[in-house]
Amino acid sequence: MVSERAASGEDSLIARYFKPLATDAGAFGLDDDAAALQVRSGEEIVVTTDAIVEGVHFLKDDPPDTVARKALRVNLSDLAAKGAATAGFVMTLALRGVDDSWLAAFARALGEDARAFGCPLLGGDTVSTPGPLTVSITAFGRVPAGKMVHRSGARPGDRVLVTGTIGDAALGLEILKGGRIGHAFVDDHPGRDALVARYRVPEPRNALALVVRDYASAAIDISDGLAGDLTKLCAASGVSALIDLPSVPTSAPAAKLLSQGATTIETLASGGDDYEILCTVAEARSEALAAAAQRAGVALTSIGTVIAGFQAPRFLDGEGSEIVLKRLSYSHF
Amino acid sequence: MVSERAASGEDSLIARYFKPLATDAGAFGLDDDAAALQVRSGEEIVVTTDAIVEGVHFLKDDPPDTVARKALRVNLSDLAAKGAATAGFVMTLALRGVDDSWLAAFARALGEDARAFGCPLLGGDTVSTPGPLTVSITAFGRVPAGKMVHRSGARPGDRVLVTGTIGDAALGLEILKGGRIGHAFVDDHPGRDALVARYRVPEPRNALALVVRDYASAAIDISDGLAGDLTKLCAASGVSALIDLPSVPTSAPAAKLLSQGATTIETLASGGDDYEILCTVAEARSEALAAAAQRAGVALTSIGTVIAGFQAPRFLDGEGSEIVLKRLSYSHF
Repeated sequence: MVSERAASGEDSLIARYFKPLATDAGAFGLDDDAAALQVRSGEEIVVTTDAIVEGVHFLKDDPPDTVARKALRVNLSDLAAKGAATAGFVMTLALRGVDDSWLAAFARALGEDARAFGCPLLGGDTVSTPGPLTVSITAFGRVPAGKMVHRSGARPGDRVLVTGTIGDAALGLEILKGGRIGHAFVDDHPGRDALVARYRVPEPRNALALVVRDYASAAIDISDGLAGDLTKLCAASGVSALIDLPSVPTSAPAAKLLSQGATTIETLASGGDDYEILCTVAEARSEALAAAAQRAGVALTSIGTVIAGFQAPRFLDGEGSEIVLKRLSYSHF
Repeated sequence: MVSERAASGEDSLIARYFKPLATDAGAFGLDDDAAALQVRSGEEIVVTTDAIVEGVHFLKDDPPDTVARKALRVNLSDLAAKGAATAGFVMTLALRGVDDSWLAAFARALGEDARAFGCPLLGGDTVSTPGPLTVSITAFGRVPAGKMVHRSGARPGDRVLVTGTIGDAALGLEILKGGRIGHAFVDDHPGRDALVARYRVPEPRNALALVVRDYASAAIDISDGLAGDLTKLCAASGVSALIDLPSVPTSAPAAKLLSQGATTIETLASGGDDYEILCTVAEARSEALAAAAQRAGVALTSIGTVIAGFQAPRFLDGEGSEIVLKRLSYSHF
């Protein structure tokens, strides 16, 4: 539309930076008004959309390559949790202006991730904004028809599992904001950097997607914090859960902060931006799931059990006493 | 992710305003991380994405219902031009805060358009932004595999046609911005309102989508102005065109301004936001196309001819003299 798509502006910007990413035949080299997503017989398309806003979901000083990766990966994480194989994505980039070195680094990293995750750029829109840089991505995945994994399938007796480690990104954000926990890492730059990297560049568990599809009774990606997202999964399934907090997997730097009393497991369990998969599995299938996860190379840890009931999930300490989390997750609105 | 998707904020906002719109089974009531788009055998999915930004693509004072309709319709227009039947859409809404009366009116109009155009809401994301309100929509259409209409299929000898009337939205924007042409309508409020409405709420030609699919050799939706978008279509097809400017269809209020010398046909042909379809058709099929368009109830006007060559399209006045357009379309970057 006027003011954003004319030959001299957006078209050349797209040609320069994003056309090289449009390797899929259905992208038509970004030369058309739309893309075509080919679908095999018996498949359906899983669609997810997530935007990141400068100053809200990433920081003004975050490097362009991390912004690109985060924008794509928060969407890839949803596809993984739904058991979908990656198929492609479209992107809307709202920019204040054209900064060539920023765009070049952004596009290069986006292209690397698109290749690494098998999720090609199919199309997009660049618009001018007087506001913060915003990257809005809609990503597509493939599943056999009816096989998308839902939040709503958890049943009493199922095990509750999470991939990777929990709470690192929330700690990384606290460090970037100059929080006190940064002091614990004055002599441990790798520990500090690992937590910051977990905030800036999530590691979506797409390697586990087909395992989730084949074994999980329910799944959700953890974006708002383990506690908050588990609460949503339980609500959607009409169940509750008992979580053994000491079982919640933590990274080495997070464990160091816990041992120093600089953070608490409650903080980690209610922090956000993990982009790990939280899933449930029938007890009878949990061994087979563990073996499949190991083959996929993704750490998967059992942290509790689904129980009957409609109350919020409960979190127990090492002695089996309930710990009441002060907040489940954070909301900006 | 943190700061935007927690139960107390975004979830309740979505439940209140957007869940009633999620009537398609594949939307799962907006209660999951993703939607599922069912695909029939032999179909492929056409994907298009367009965002509108307050102060750039719509004005701060535009009513919420017109913002909703414009956000969806600029995407529907792309689907129509590609010959695709509407299938659904996802939306990312970047808001500064929650204004209930604004959101209620926005959601109501969005739901009305979704029903009217058979394009249900499948999913979305609401994010907080300190910047301008931005609505980013990705819309899906269906075509038999390989049948999407491209920009690149125009051949010398084809006729060039446009739907509806050209230039109204650009005039409407000029009026809203307090331009001098507003004076022509001091005693003609219906004329003024008609032009403003064309800017605020495009009329996408989805009623013609299957006709375009079955007859057009190439098509594009006119978002940046007839001249600019025709130039893109010709470039993609490796052809040129001769356009008879007096044949370009104009509305009654636009014709009134032309007759008063208050605007020029060049201005109309290079204005933006028309959201009409520009298409080409083989001469031998043009009568059948005209008949099909009439059955579909969409005005379709022949305005010129595709010719061989690589130069930009040429615009001729009533005497056959070339008129050089000062600008083809407008770019913000």
